[in-house]
This record gives sequence, structure tokens and C-alpha cells, in this order.
Amino acid sequence: MPSPIYTSNSQDRSVTLHSPVSMPNACGFLWNPKMMIQMNCCGYAQAQHMQPEPSKYAKAPGLEAETFMQPEHHYYAHHPGRFVYVKETGKKLLSLPYEPVRKAPESFKFTHLPNALKWEIVDANIRYILTLTLSDKQALEVWNLSIDNLGETERSLSIYPYFPFGYLSWMNQGAVYDQSLHAIIGRCVTPYQKATDLEKIKALKDLTFFASDRKPDSWTCVQNDFEGQGGLAEPQGVSDPTLSGNDAVYEVPTACMQFNLTLAANNTQQFNWLFGPAQTRSEIAVLLKHFSCTASPQKSVHRKAIHISCPDTELSQFVNTWLPRQIQYHGESNRLTTDPQTRNFLQDNMAFLYLEPSAAKRSFLLALAQQKADGEMPDGILLHKDAELKYINKVPHSDHNVWLVIFLHAYLNETNDLAILNTRCAYSDAGEASVFEHIEAAMCHLNQNLDARGLAKIHQGDWCDPMNMVGFKGKGVSSWLSMATSYSFKLWSIICKNSAKHKQADIWLTRHKQLNANINTHFKDNHWYARGITDQGRLFGIDK
Amino acid sequence: MPSPIYTSNSQDRSVTLHSPVSMPNACGFLWNPKMMIQMNCCGYAQAQHMQPEPSKYAKAPGLEAETFMQPEHHYYAHHPGRFVYVKETGKKLLSLPYEPVRKAPESFKFTHLPNALKWEIVDANIRYILTLTLSDKQALEVWNLSIDNLGETERSLSIYPYFPFGYLSWMNQGAVYDQSLHAIIGRCVTPYQKATDLEKIKALKDLTFFASDRKPDSWTCVQNDFEGQGGLAEPQGVSDPTLSGNDAVYEVPTACMQFNLTLAANNTQQFNWLFGPAQTRSEIAVLLKHFSCTASPQKSVHRKAIHISCPDTELSQFVNTWLPRQIQYHGESNRLTTDPQTRNFLQDNMAFLYLEPSAAKRSFLLALAQQKADGEMPDGILLHKDAELKYINKVPHSDHNVWLVIFLHAYLNETNDLAILNTRCAYSDAGEASVFEHIEAAMCHLNQNLDARGLAKIHQGDWCDPMNMVGFKGKGVSSWLSMATSYSFKLWSIICKNSAKHKQADIWLTRHKQLNANINTHFKDNHWYARGITDQGRLFGIDK
Repeated sequence: MPSPIYTSNSQDRSVTLHSPVSMPNACGFLWNPKMMIQMNCCGYAQAQHMQPEPSKYAKAPGLEAETFMQPEHHYYAHHPGRFVYVKETGKKLLSLPYEPVRKAPESFKFTHLPNALKWEIVDANIRYILTLTLSDKQALEVWNLSIDNLGETERSLSIYPYFPFGYLSWMNQGAVYDQSLHAIIGRCVTPYQKATDLEKIKALKDLTFFASDRKPDSWTCVQNDFEGQGGLAEPQGVSDPTLSGNDAVYEVPTACMQFNLTLAANNTQQFNWLFGPAQTRSEIAVLLKHFSCTASPQKSVHRKAIHISCPDTELSQFVNTWLPRQIQYHGESNRLTTDPQTRNFLQDNMAFLYLEPSAAKRSFLLALAQQKADGEMPDGILLHKDAELKYINKVPHSDHNVWLVIFLHAYLNETNDLAILNTRCAYSDAGEASVFEHIEAAMCHLNQNLDARGLAKIHQGDWCDPMNMVGFKGKGVSSWLSMATSYSFKLWSIICKNSAKHKQADIWLTRHKQLNANINTHFKDNHWYARGITDQGRLFGIDK
Repeated sequence: MPSPIYTSNSQDRSVTLHSPVSMPNACGFLWNPKMMIQMNCCGYAQAQHMQPEPSKYAKAPGLEAETFMQPEHHYYAHHPGRFVYVKETGKKLLSLPYEPVRKAPESFKFTHLPNALKWEIVDANIRYILTLTLSDKQALEVWNLSIDNLGETERSLSIYPYFPFGYLSWMNQGAVYDQSLHAIIGRCVTPYQKATDLEKIKALKDLTFFASDRKPDSWTCVQNDFEGQGGLAEPQGVSDPTLSGNDAVYEVPTACMQFNLTLAANNTQQFNWLFGPAQTRSEIAVLLKHFSCTASPQKSVHRKAIHISCPDTELSQFVNTWLPRQIQYHGESNRLTTDPQTRNFLQDNMAFLYLEPSAAKRSFLLALAQQKADGEMPDGILLHKDAELKYINKVPHSDHNVWLVIFLHAYLNETNDLAILNTRCAYSDAGEASVFEHIEAAMCHLNQNLDARGLAKIHQGDWCDPMNMVGFKGKGVSSWLSMATSYSFKLWSIICKNSAKHKQADIWLTRHKQLNANINTHFKDNHWYARGITDQGRLFGIDK
């Protein structure tokens, strides 16, 4: 039987990948209240911290666009990452975990634990265990490298952690080695042009630091010095006996340190490194003192909703570990934005309510307080006083109201907290009302969005971004949105009934049935439903 | 004597660099009315075309920020470029011109001609001549590769032009091989979010194509297929007998073709390739037919202002070739923006008037027509009906008016075209006036910018961007701007006098003298002039 590509372990709730090349894009992620980091098995990283808008402390080699987190991420040689080169005289250069040298080690394990990412690599009779955890509360990566000599002879190695900063800013960038902190500190000025932005810029963490618990034997802050003609696969800095020892002045900075060590037979050595953003040098000094550069792993706070145990152990692990972790991440981090889309925010909290119903309720009430008195929900929920609607949230979508009642229905089913319906909550523009009245207003707003045929108008989009050219003239209708509207009317009718509002329950049930009838009349095309009808009256999403 | 790093040739007005590593950032540029391309000696490229805003048809590997052209450009392995791999059984892989493989050839020449960039590389008894020219009028790169077998034995080579497209768009990207055109056509959707932007997007050239005059033996459109585990220095696609033949579907596209050739002793073969943006496949087909894939070099249209011949041949070449070419580029291309800064636009045309006084005059009148009736010049000059003030042009600077009279003074000295002073020209807001009256209004506006001490207020900036925090409250003054204002008063006084407006001449001469006196009173600090006085009344830019 071929060895499996990956294995899972229900004891420590981990998944382990056994090769860096079988699924090179396979990645894991960690988060805390200030940041998240996603790392692929080969060593490439994407990290963001919130200040309060999402920011990067290690960047791409060229000027990056600021945008929302992208799907289908593409990796390339100079993509941001965390690497350790290992040099031993007479042996081929190795880099941990795999990039940039791409030397296949004798054995490779990339293990995703709930609160740590761990690589265990054996090569030439040495075992390397590289572990990443996050600080509990700060935007701070905590790295540990353990090197075990598995053999009976003494070994002499040079170890080079290489944590590139990337192209930090076109306005000003550089890095210096700070002797007393054993740290390389990159600095930049976040570009700004308007005088009014200066105060904001001053409050940003424009330093990126890499700090070591031991004094390095050499170091460089200059990307070009490090690479030379050898490039990342065979850097000049690593080929040379020592790194250049240069600071980076108005040029692309980097962090690389060299540690020369002699490892006795069956002996182990440990390295501890910290990497993250900061505003000032003294902030870095305080952080280092606090950590004393020893790993302080994040506490495991992951909750479980349901637990299954079935013959398919992967399914069990998916349900028992992956799913609640994913839900918790979304519930806690709001996709690392200060203006999550209303739909996403309600959906994420709809899952989160099975883990933390009180937190989900708070989020629901926060969203409701941003509803207008006419029932309309905004396209995004602002989480911070300075937050603004950005990117896709500037394009109106028509489905947000639907999710209010879908959330509420799930929430009531799970908690039976009927009292929520009487909770008072402000509108964003004028006055306040009970939650019940908020939802009634939302349902009326959806009802008003039905056209003369009784179908839901799509406007610039229902939930599907590529549909945004179908109905922006205000005539096109969406079959999905009509169905979702109908479903929300049904759920609301049920909630009304359970709250003994029988008259309202009847009204919304009738509207639900009528809407279903309209859908069947207008959207049905042979055995399928069409996707909608355009502004021009054309049925689309059908065979023809 | 060591061989020189570069040599120049006054006959063909070229400069030749003799090594790819002595000055790896050394680069050349070509332009035509639609585009410019800057290439470094190693093969990295930055190209922009105007549609009418600046756009790229080959991009970075990650999502790039859209911004103005950056100084101190940084190169890295996956930076956009144009490369040709050469494979011969039993020999080390070579890439032209130098990147990404970085094999040092036996000889290397990178020659910058006025209308072409040319590499002549000899390795293992084969001479490669790689030449880039631009189409006369279109955004189109015309590449020719000539391969000469210098030896007495037949050689079998595989040639792989590799023209990566980069990460074209997060919204949609891909590439296909078009058999009948012998072309790889990359396509993307320029990201947009607002329905109102759709019409604009539809007019963009969202295709990038690489076309060959001969049918390739194999090809790939998939960046990952091409690189595999070998990376750019030893791509899997090149190691394999043939390229994958795959189209790129919603993944990072590329253009690579393989040509297998047998080269008899002392024989030569030619390859012709076109690379550029297009809107439709039929546009590509027309372009290919027009060029028939044979190089049609841009005509030499470079003008000379003055010609010197001095013992320092480099100085001669600098004055006779480099300088007029640089001036012509700026005069013709306006820094590839549709809203050049007013200062830059007037300065560029101040140089251009020595080459093409009539064009410089047109530009000057275009700028004047954007002046307000109160004399104020805008921060940028709009060159296109849809153009908008962007980036730094949204930050008001106080020096633009100064350059009007500096331009005019130089223009009159060169052309003696006093009639320009009576030319009628509209204001941007109301009415029209003679050029003389426009400049008088500009001078009055500068005069009104003097504070109670008679010094020029800096507001958000004089000409120097980093000074924009000194006086944004409206009190800080600039010594540079006071001097520039004084100088412009003096020039205007001279022009008034030459136009027999003696009374005005006297007024401005008096103001000039008074301003100089104010400068000496307030800015002088020991033997130096200070840089200015802040809003808070602090003299800055001094010893202390």
C-alpha cells in the first residue's frame, strides 16, 4: 500500500502532510485577536495584523495592491515566507521547511495542530523541528527551532534564519541591526500624500523586527547583499563565510542572521526567534523582555459543538476539529476586516452561535443597530468607529435582509432565547425598536423589492458578484433572491407563530406561498429554474 | 589596462555594456506614442501602454499596486521580463540575455541604440543577437533573435522564448495557444466593482499576446507547468523533452514556446516574435498580418539641439545623444501620465522648446488654458478629456505659477516669438485673455501668496513633497519659494520691459528687490539661508 499523502491524529487533533511536493499549496493558519498567519507547507507565508485596518509587516518584493484577501493564492520564489538555511561543509545546502532551496529531505512532516504549525525534517542524520506559535494577544510570531544530532559524530553547522521583509514602502525603507536586542529592525514610512493622513500614519506600526534569543555570529539587513548572484536557491551571503553585516539604507531590507554551532553526538540545540510589527524600538524591547525569547504557546481555547466518532476517522476529525476551528476563526476574526459584508457577518455568526451563542447574539444586535428604520440593511457591518465600507461593500447587493431571519431562526432553535425578540435596539438613522420590529421591517423591505410580477429585483447583485450586470437598471429579477426571500418569509411566519403573532404569521405565510407560485410561473424552464430575468426581459441561466 | 565597463560609439550613437553583472540594474528604454518599455541588461522589463491611462500587459507575480512610476526600482527573480532559454544536450542551460539562469556567457554586450536595445552574446561557439524595437505607432514589442553557428560542426538546439504574463487579474485570468496565429493569448478581466465602470473596462486591451513567425514545436500557457520544481533557473518545462501544451484556465498564465533547430556549420537562423496588448483576437490577427512577423524598426526621429565635439567623448555623447533623447522622451510622452504635474510639464517643455519650439508652445498654451482667472495654476495639467488629477496632484503645491514665466523667458530667448504675448487663451473658469495678461495674473497670484512679512507661504508644499507638513495651517513660509517667486518677478519685469510695458516692468522689479530684502532679513542664519519658517514660527533647515 502506498504511504498516505497525509495522516490525521485525533489525540492532538493534528493533520500531518508527509511531503513538501505532493500538495505544495497545502497550508495551515493560526490567529489571535490581533493577527492571522497562513503558511504553506513549503515556508511561504501571508500574515496580516489589524491596526485597526489590515496591514502587512512582511511584504511582496514589488509594490503590492491593498485589497481584500484573495482566493487561489499564487506562490513564487520571492513570495513572503519564513525560511532557515542550513549549511554544512561538504554537504548540499538545505533550507527549512523546503523553499527556497527545494532540497528534498530524507523525511518531511508538516503538522497542523490547533495552535501551532510544526515541521519535522530529518536530513543527513539531523532532526530539525521548526515550530510556529503566536503570542496570546499581540501581533507576534513565536518561532522555535530544535536541532538534534541523531548520529554518533560531532557536527558543525551554520544556521541562517532568513525572514525577508519585502518591499516595505516606496516612500522610505531600511533596516538596522540592533546589537543590544539581537534584533534586525526594518522600518518604513507608510506612503501618504494628504496632510490630513499624517496623524493616522504616525500611529501605525511601521517597524518589522526579527529578534533572536542568542547573539548571531553575523547578520545582514540588505536583500541584495544576501542574495548576490546566487539568488535565493544559493545565496551569496550563505556561500560566504559570514554575512555582510550591512544595514539597509533606502534599499530593500531583509532579516538574515548566521549562527555557527557545533553539535555533539546525540545532542540538541534550541533557537528562539520572534517576528512581528512594532511602532517603536522600546515596544520591541518590552516584547522581548516579556517573552525572554522563549516560546509561550497560545492557550488552546478551541470549543467543540458536537462530537462524532465514526469509522471514517477523517470525517470525525473534520467535524470534531476542523469545522469548529474554522467557525471560531470566522466568529472571532471577522475575516480580518473592519467592514465584513453583512451577509458574511450574519452567516459566520450563524455558525458561531453553536459555539458561543452570547457572542453571536452580540454580533446580531450590532448588525441590527446598523439597519435603517425603513428596514434596509447596509452592505457591510462597521466594527470600528473609523471603519468605512470598502471594495465590494460599495456595490449594493440585495440579499442582506434575508440573512437576518435565517440567523434568528437558527439562534432561536439553538437557544430558545425568545426574550431576544423584545430586546430594544436602535436604527442607524432614527429611533429604536424591538428586535421583532426590526425583523418585521426587514421583511417588509424585502417585500417592497418585489416587482409587478411579484419577483425579487436583483439591482446590482443578489449575493453573486458576477450577476451585477443583470439588473442594475432596476428591472432585472433574480430567481435565487426570489427563493431566498420566500424562504425568509416562511421562517418569519414560523417565528411570528411561535410568538403568538398569528395574524402576522398568516400574512407572511400567504406571501411565501404567493412568491413560490410566482417563481414557478416565471422562472421554470423545462425541468430547471432559470437564474433570473435581465433588465431587457430575457430569461437567463437556461439551456439556450 | 582593464577593459572598460561600457563603451560608447558616436557613429551609431550607442552605448554598450560588456557584462551582465558589473551594473546589473543598468537599463535602457524605448518609447513610441502609445507605450514605453524599460529593460535592464539582464532581461527584466517594465512596460506601460496608454489606453489612455497607463496600463501593463505583463505584470508582477502577485497583485501589483497601481501607482506612478517608481524610482529606485527593485528587481527579483519573478520580476516581469523577456527571456530565451537555450538547451543543448550535454551543455549547461543558458538563458538570454542573462536572467533567470544567470550562466555567464563567454562574451556579453548590451547595446543601447537610439531606437533599439540589442544583446550580442557568444557562448559555446554560437552567437546570439537579440534585438528589441517597438512598432512605430502601436503598443507592440518587436523581437528578433538571430542565432549564428560560428563553428564547423552541426549543432542541435532547443530555443524557448519565455515571456511571462504575471498575475494578470484576480477576477479572471488565463491563456490559450492559438494554432492558426502561432500565438499564445493571455486574457483577463481588469477588476472592477461598480456597474458604472463596466463600459470603461470593456474598452480596455485585456489580452496580452506572444506571437511567433514560425510554428513552435511545443508550447505552454501555464506558469506552474513551466516551472515545476525546477524553478526559473532550471524549469521543468525546459528539462522535459517538450512543453506541456496546456492552456491556463483560471490560473497564472504564461507564454513559453519551444523551437527545436538544427544549425549547420557557419549557418544562421532567425526568429521573429511580437509581444503586446490587444483588445480582441482579430486585432491580433491584423497586427500579425501587418508585421508578417518581420521586424519593422521604428524610424529614427531624434532631433539634435546642439552638437559638441570635445576630447571627452563621453561628454560629447551625453550632450549630443543622451540629453536630446531624454528631452524628446519627456516632451513626447509626458511621463506616461494623463495628468503630469504642472511644474514637471512646464519644465519638460522648457527643455523640449530647444528641440521643438512649436510643440513646446502648444503645451504651454494648453497649460495656460487650465489657469483660473484669478491667476492660480492647477496642480496637474489634464491631457485627456477623461483625465483626472491623481496621486500627488491631489496635494496642493504652491510653486506652479513660478514656472510659467521661467518657461516663457526661455522660450522668448530661443525663438524671439514676441507675438505669443498677444495670443488669446481661455481661462479654465471664465473668460479669456492674452498670454501677457495670463502671466500678469499668475504673478499677481504669487504676490498675493506673500504673508505680512512679505515671504511666500508654503501651504502643503512648495515643490518639495517632504515639506508638506511645514505650513499646511497657512502660516509657514518657504525660503525656496520666496526666492523662486522673486526670480519670477525679475524675469517678468524683463519681459514687460522688452514689451515696452515700462510701468509694469518697474512695479515687478521693485517687488523683486523688496522680496530679496525680506528673504535676507528673515531667512539668513549665519552664512546660510534657512529652508523656511514653520506654522509655529520656527526657523528650520539650519545648523540647530
